[in-house]
Formats: sequence, structure tokens, C-alpha cells
Amino acid sequence: MTLTGHMLIGQHTVAGNRDAIRGLDPATGTALEPAYFGGSAEHVEQACALAWAALDRYRETTLSARGEFLERIAEEIEGLGDELIDRATSETGLPRARLLGERARTCQQLRMFARTVRAGEWLDVRVDPAQPQRQPLPRSDLRQRQIPLGPVAVFGASNFPLAFSVAGGDTASALAAGCPVIVKAHGAHPGTSELVGRAVARAVKACDVPEGVFSLVYGSGRELGIALVSDRRIKAVGFTGSRSGGLALIQAAQARPEPIPVYAEMSSINPVLLFPAALHQRTPALAEGFVASLTLGAGQFCTNPGLVIARQGPALDAFVGRVAERLQHSPAQTMLTPDICSAYKAGVNALAQNSRARIAASGQIAGGPNACQAHVFVTDAADFLTDHSLQAEVFGAASLIVQCASDAEIRQVIEHLEGQLTTTLQLDDDDLELARSLLPTLERKAGRLLVNGWPTGVEVCDAMVHGGPFPATSDARTTSVGSAAILRFLRPVCYQDFPDSLLPSALKQANPLHLRRLFDGQREASIHAE
Amino acid sequence: MTLTGHMLIGQHTVAGNRDAIRGLDPATGTALEPAYFGGSAEHVEQACALAWAALDRYRETTLSARGEFLERIAEEIEGLGDELIDRATSETGLPRARLLGERARTCQQLRMFARTVRAGEWLDVRVDPAQPQRQPLPRSDLRQRQIPLGPVAVFGASNFPLAFSVAGGDTASALAAGCPVIVKAHGAHPGTSELVGRAVARAVKACDVPEGVFSLVYGSGRELGIALVSDRRIKAVGFTGSRSGGLALIQAAQARPEPIPVYAEMSSINPVLLFPAALHQRTPALAEGFVASLTLGAGQFCTNPGLVIARQGPALDAFVGRVAERLQHSPAQTMLTPDICSAYKAGVNALAQNSRARIAASGQIAGGPNACQAHVFVTDAADFLTDHSLQAEVFGAASLIVQCASDAEIRQVIEHLEGQLTTTLQLDDDDLELARSLLPTLERKAGRLLVNGWPTGVEVCDAMVHGGPFPATSDARTTSVGSAAILRFLRPVCYQDFPDSLLPSALKQANPLHLRRLFDGQREASIHAE
Repeated sequence: MTLTGHMLIGQHTVAGNRDAIRGLDPATGTALEPAYFGGSAEHVEQACALAWAALDRYRETTLSARGEFLERIAEEIEGLGDELIDRATSETGLPRARLLGERARTCQQLRMFARTVRAGEWLDVRVDPAQPQRQPLPRSDLRQRQIPLGPVAVFGASNFPLAFSVAGGDTASALAAGCPVIVKAHGAHPGTSELVGRAVARAVKACDVPEGVFSLVYGSGRELGIALVSDRRIKAVGFTGSRSGGLALIQAAQARPEPIPVYAEMSSINPVLLFPAALHQRTPALAEGFVASLTLGAGQFCTNPGLVIARQGPALDAFVGRVAERLQHSPAQTMLTPDICSAYKAGVNALAQNSRARIAASGQIAGGPNACQAHVFVTDAADFLTDHSLQAEVFGAASLIVQCASDAEIRQVIEHLEGQLTTTLQLDDDDLELARSLLPTLERKAGRLLVNGWPTGVEVCDAMVHGGPFPATSDARTTSVGSAAILRFLRPVCYQDFPDSLLPSALKQANPLHLRRLFDGQREASIHAE
Repeated sequence: MTLTGHMLIGQHTVAGNRDAIRGLDPATGTALEPAYFGGSAEHVEQACALAWAALDRYRETTLSARGEFLERIAEEIEGLGDELIDRATSETGLPRARLLGERARTCQQLRMFARTVRAGEWLDVRVDPAQPQRQPLPRSDLRQRQIPLGPVAVFGASNFPLAFSVAGGDTASALAAGCPVIVKAHGAHPGTSELVGRAVARAVKACDVPEGVFSLVYGSGRELGIALVSDRRIKAVGFTGSRSGGLALIQAAQARPEPIPVYAEMSSINPVLLFPAALHQRTPALAEGFVASLTLGAGQFCTNPGLVIARQGPALDAFVGRVAERLQHSPAQTMLTPDICSAYKAGVNALAQNSRARIAASGQIAGGPNACQAHVFVTDAADFLTDHSLQAEVFGAASLIVQCASDAEIRQVIEHLEGQLTTTLQLDDDDLELARSLLPTLERKAGRLLVNGWPTGVEVCDAMVHGGPFPATSDARTTSVGSAAILRFLRPVCYQDFPDSLLPSALKQANPLHLRRLFDGQREASIHAE
């Protein structure tokens, strides 16, 4: 397929008329063809009008039709074959194997949402049948279902050009909920975005859903994104990226006459707690596991282990020594974009110049144009508690080890942390008592707690939580990965004393969708009509 | 019980040191004893510190212990007997029968949340067991449950001194979720608040839950409330009241270093659609039902029918005529407070002076100090679409009838509406087609749709939605009435590869809470261990 450099507004290919965006091969610094010209307010208007026009029909598609649509998107993406992988490799510098895995994950994610849609639990159907004889007042017939919020604006991430981008988790869950989606393509992978966007548009056509269900727009800077979030027809926002970018969208969303929810996944340093027995008994393995997680993908994961917390002493010294040994063999890796690379260098420099931290380990010196040299710093708990800047996320392969003088200080350090996506506990049996005592604090700080693993690697499943208290995300009540992500785009509606013929099918007496409802206060054990 | 005029900070009775608040009998204008002196920043600090100290223990109370606590609160409120009803009557001017009903509803609500807590569905337990053999990568064991957000600040409403106040729906649902609660008493019923607050405090003691689980503070103006919402230990807010009050709290909540969710139920005019066949065939009954709903409780309900939409013509003229006949016999009723009464008069005056509206019906002239004369105005759709001020809520027994020239204009008027708590459809069989065509629009505008009823009267049950798009509430994804209100105060946490001994009981392999989990992608049909 020849890349056009154009936007997709519904089924229409539309050329932008603002500044050009170009993909860049970060490994070579070469600009890639074609140029993608940014959209204007008029393009936002067109996409929003189409999305609005699509809403009422799309949100009443049958569960099976919506499931087929999601599956068809997956098939269309797979059908792109090597062209997609090749373009994504050029635009991101990510290894081919990683992108093959990410494509599989993206398609699996779409298929998971298809299953979730068909199961229908997200409709959360509740029926309280009429009680005409009740005293002192009769009860009306009351029925509740969930309906989609409306059109959703999605802002993809640079670090997952497939799984958190055009047809990533935000798009898949919003479409699953019945929301039309307008994606603002990430400027770091415009060609990958066009390829995937066209795959989605083909699925739209093949499945005969209204064309406004999907649009893809481009824009450099924040102007187009703010215009999109400010449009009255947009009813929710999904975003994965920087804290400043997320906060700008939240501000725009709250300044609207009708404020709307923003699901922004922003910033997390993913503390790893090395408990005493585990640290003592598994020093080399922990050091190796840590370095592997730290340097995976040049450290460009939201769940990168940017903070290690442990008791000071010989075991921690040994750990640090081993980390230094391993890290010095760790090659510099190409980062996704020049901006990310310079932000990484600035973050590392700030730590290097901070008298409260000292450098303890470094990877191989960076060679290529956007290469990232890994670094590990050490600080003391007292310093960490004093200097808030030590909590700043350094996106890339950098981490800070916090040495604590006592268990009490460990607790203090944890209480002092901002909200996180993950917290990791490296522990052995002898550590269980201490871990148990810290658990309530840890639960208050993070969306996912892991034992004896590493935070990088996020399973797409029902039980996943990729979320957490601010500033990890803007809404701790939700997850952006896993089937529960669909719940972000729904709201309840109650129907009182409706004639059966006017009820949506999810609520009809005959229960045609075969749902296990909450009926008269009881969850139905099997599927039946009234 | 002698009223003390003091706040309750945990189990301690504490005298305020700021401006005095006094209950007022609105029927006579008489100030009531004792004076309640407002709290300071120090009292907010004390209550928040206690709530924070209580959180980790309270949120892990067993489901049955938490259920018993909620039931005990209901018993303690019932145990207040006539003293509560007498005081509430004096402070609100509401009829005794209404307050007896409201007390029953309040206690039933607490008992419903006790049942909801015990059923445990709100924990939304999801288990994806490990798949060590999976290719290309093994799957970890992943388990999700919901945990409470943390301490909640509750701001009660003036118009429901029991059901939406100290131990009302916000408090009951937050306590059910496992959140400590700090209530800011509404200044319109300080004595009623003290009585109920002491009942809750007695239940806290009797059930041996940590004392910080409940505090009750007083404060005139907005200073104390803003201090409460701004405290770092408060993690969510429940509010029922005016749009300006709600927006002030939202602003404070968003200005925090860690923004928090605010569930504000603010402003709704609850449109009633009179469909042609129903209007033609049931003119007198509709007029009577409308007047009864409009004037119920001096119109002081969030669900008061403040807007009527219908096709112009003889049937609507007959309806208006019948409304005028009925309303002229409707006595003026005492409103809750002088402030509410003067706001009502200002709203009515604004309509009376608006050249786009004309007065069509009025109740009996007001006599007593805070009495409310009912009014019904009429306008044309074209005027309504032009003048946004005609959508302003006039809290009290006032309503506006919008005459539409066509079905298309009806649709335009509905699309033009702000978000609503309710929309009512008065329809007969011949109206079904038109109703069906308007339904998608109506669903987008309101949280509850009623057929052939009146919006006043909100059932406390599983299927209720008392919520809706902004400005009806600040969060259309939720309801403040009914068992789903518990979901507002929860967030998911995922536990990855945890040893069974470290897992919370909701997630342990033996399934000791007997939950029907979402296990490996399937909802368990019966309760079993792994």
C-alpha cells in the first residue's frame, strides 16, 4: 500500500493544510516519506460531526455485530503483513521481534474486547420489577443498563506504536463500549498510524458500521488536540503520554461548558522493594532481573523500574555492585525520538548534578544519534524524603536506589511516594511479615502489586490493572489495559415503567441477550426470561 | 437527648470557635437553640487525621461486620424516635408524615447497603490463573479486587434532612465501600444533623469500628468545606446542592496537588414530554398529575418537573387551562430556608420579566414568612432555543411549558437541553413511534427515563439511577441513589503472583468470601474454590 500522508475522516482521505509531520528513523536520523500535513479546526469539525452522526446507530449495534467489527479490525491489521512491521521498525527503531509481539498483543486485545462485548456483563443489567401491592407506596418497574458516553478522542503513545496507538487499548475499549473514536495520530509514527488507520477504516466498511465510527487526524503541537478535546460532541478522552501533555488535556476538558472525563496515563516510577531475606539470598538473580527490566526497550516503558527501595547494608551494597557489573555490558539502545532522547539526557543530568544522589552504575556509552546510556543512581532515604525532584520520572533506562536505615524508614519512603502504576515486592518467606505490614500502604499507592517479578510486561486480561492514583493516571478508578477498560466509556441509564416494546433489548422481559441480570436483588444463576 | 451545639470529631464532642449557625423554623422565622459554632482549619485537621488513621483497618473489616455496622446505624436512628422527627419538623417546615417517610427511606437505604456489602459483587473479583506453559511467554497469576478510595467528605442537602444528609445516601454508600466519612452538616438543619451524627457515632462505638470512621463538622460559608475538600487525606467528595456550590467544590478538588473525584448532584429541570395522543386523551389527568408533582414539598425536589414540552394546539391549551384551574387552589407552602425562598422569588421574577415567557397559572398567594407561590409559565420553542436563561433551574414550585410547532421542533428542544436527572414521557400506544424516534436523544440527556409517571419520587433500589450528564451531576458515570452508588468510592487493584497467604481474603484460592468470580474469562456459575 502506498502511504498517502493524508488523514482519514470517516471513509474519506483528506489532506491536511497545517505544518508537516514526518516520521524519522531514530537509528539514522533520516526523515521518512511522505509528509503528513496537520489538520485544522475544520477537520476536527468534520470528524466530530461524523462521529456524532454515527453515535446513535453504532451504540445500538448488536453485541455480535460489534464483536465481529472488533475481530475484523484485528484481521485487517494482520493483513497488513510485513509492510506494517517494516514501517514501524523504521519509525521507532524498535526491534522487529518486539513489534511482531506487539502486533500480536494488539490483535489479541481487540479479540478480547470482542469476547467481552458478547458476554454482555458490561451492560450491568439490573431489574427491580414492579410491586403494585407494596405499602405504603407501590414500586415502579425499574431497569438499568449502561450506555456509551459518546464519541471519544484518543491520543496514542510513542512507545507502543501499535498496542497503545491507533487501534490500541483506548480505541478498542471505546469501540467495544459503543463509542465512535477519533484518534489523533502520534507524530512519532505517522506512517504506522496511517496503515493501521486504513485497516480500521476497511473494517468499518466491511462491517457496515457508520463511517463516523472512526477517524484519524494529524497535528503537530497541541492545537489540534485541544480543539478536539474542546469539541462539544467529544464526551471522553483517552491519553497515554507525558504528565504535561496529560495535564493540558485535562485542563481543556474541564474548561468546557460540559466538562468530560479524561483517562490520562501519565507518569510512574514503579518502585521495587527488595525485602531483606530476598535481597540477602538472591542478590545476583535480583541484580540481573533488575538490569534486564531496566534496560528492556531502552527503558521506554510506563512500568520501567525507576525506583528501588531497600535496607542499607552489605546485601544492598552487593546488589549495587552486581548491578554495576551487569550494566557496564549493557549496550546503548536507540530511543524512539530525538525529543525523548534529549528529555532522558536532561533527566539523567539533573540526577547527576543533584548532590543528594550519586551515580552507581552505567551502561555502555551511547554511540548513535538517539542512543540511551543506562544509569543507576543511589540516594539515602532522608534525602529522598527531602527532595521531591528525586521522584520525577526519567523516561528511559535510569533508576534510583533509595537506601533506608530501618523498616520504619522504608514505610516513610513508601508513604511519601506519589501514585504509581505498579509496585514490585521481591520477597522470600522470611519477608512475609514485613510485606504484610506494608501492604495497606502499597495498595493505596499503586494499581498493580507484583511479587517476585518485574513491572515491565503488562498482561492483557480480565484481572489486569494498568492504572493507579494520580499522577500515574488522572483517574485511579479505572484501568487502561484489560477488559475492565471498557467500563471507562459507559454510564448508567434507568428506564422506569417502560412498555416492553420501547425497552432496549438488554432490558426486555424475554431477556433476548441471555444476560445474567441482577433481578429483584439477586444475581440470576442461570439465564432466563421473566 | 440534649442538643449540645458541638461537632463530633470521632468519638469526641468538640465546640467550634467560628461563626454561629442556628436552625430556624421557616414557618415562623424563629431561631432555634442551641447555636452551632463553626469549626476551624484545626478541626478539619483533627477529623482528617482520625479518618486517615481509621482507613486501613476499617477498609479490611469483614463484609458481615461492615453490614452490621450499617444496620446498627439504622437502628440507632430509629432509636432517636420522636425527638428526631420533632427537631427536623422545626428546622425544615416539612410535614411530619413526609419526615417519617424519609426516616424510613434513610434506614432502608442503610440496610440495602448492608445487603450490598455482604453480597460482595462490588468487589468485582477477577482471577486469571497462571499459565506457566503458555508460549511464547508464560502468564502470571493475576487477581483483581476493588478497594475504597479513602476518606470521603460528604455535603448534605437542605431538602432531604435525613435521606441526603448526615447518614444519607452518600454517607451510607461511602461507608459501605470501606471509606471513612467526614460530614459537613448543612446549616439549615444543624440539630437534626447532631442527632443523626450522634446516632452514627454510637454505632461506631457499639460495632468497634475505628472512631475516625465518622466525624461531623459545622461551618458557615464555604471556608470549612473548601478546607475539607483540599485536605490531602480526603480522596473523594459527595455533594447534593446548588450548581454554584458544587462547582466551587469541584474547583477546589481539581486545584489539589492530587485531584480527587467530586460527585456533585447539582441542577436539573426534569423535562416532561406530553406526547400528542396522551395529551389529547388524558388532558385532565395529566394536568392533575403535573400539578401534584410540581407542588409536592413546595417543589423542593431535585426531580421537580420544571419543564414541560408538547406540541402547541387545542390539547395543550386545554392542558394549560386545567393546570391553571387546579393550581389556583394550591396553597402556598413553607420553603426550607429564607435563602431558598428568596432564590425562588428571584427565579420567578426573572421569568415574569422575560418577554419570551408569559405566566399561565399561579397558586395561592404566599402568606407566611417563607411561603412559596406556585407558578407555571409558557414559552415557544423558538424562544426557548434562543434564550439559554430559560433553562435555569428555579428551585421550587415553578415550571415552564414549551410549545412546539412540530415534532422536529420537539426534537430540537430536547437536543438543546443540558444534562438532566430525569426525563418523563407521557404517552399512549399511538405515541410509541414518535417516542421510539426520540429515545436515543433522551438517553443522551438524562440518567432516568420514566413513562407515564412523574419524576418526583426516587426509589432506593439496585436499578435506580439518580444521576445524569452535566450539570445534573458532575459525573454522569455514576448514581447517588441505589446500590450502584457504592461503585463511586472504589478503585481496582491487581495482585500479581502473590503467595496465597499474602492475598486479601476476597482473592484467596479457597474463595472464603464465597464470591462468584470472573475466573479465567468465565463468570463462575456457582461458588467454589480453585
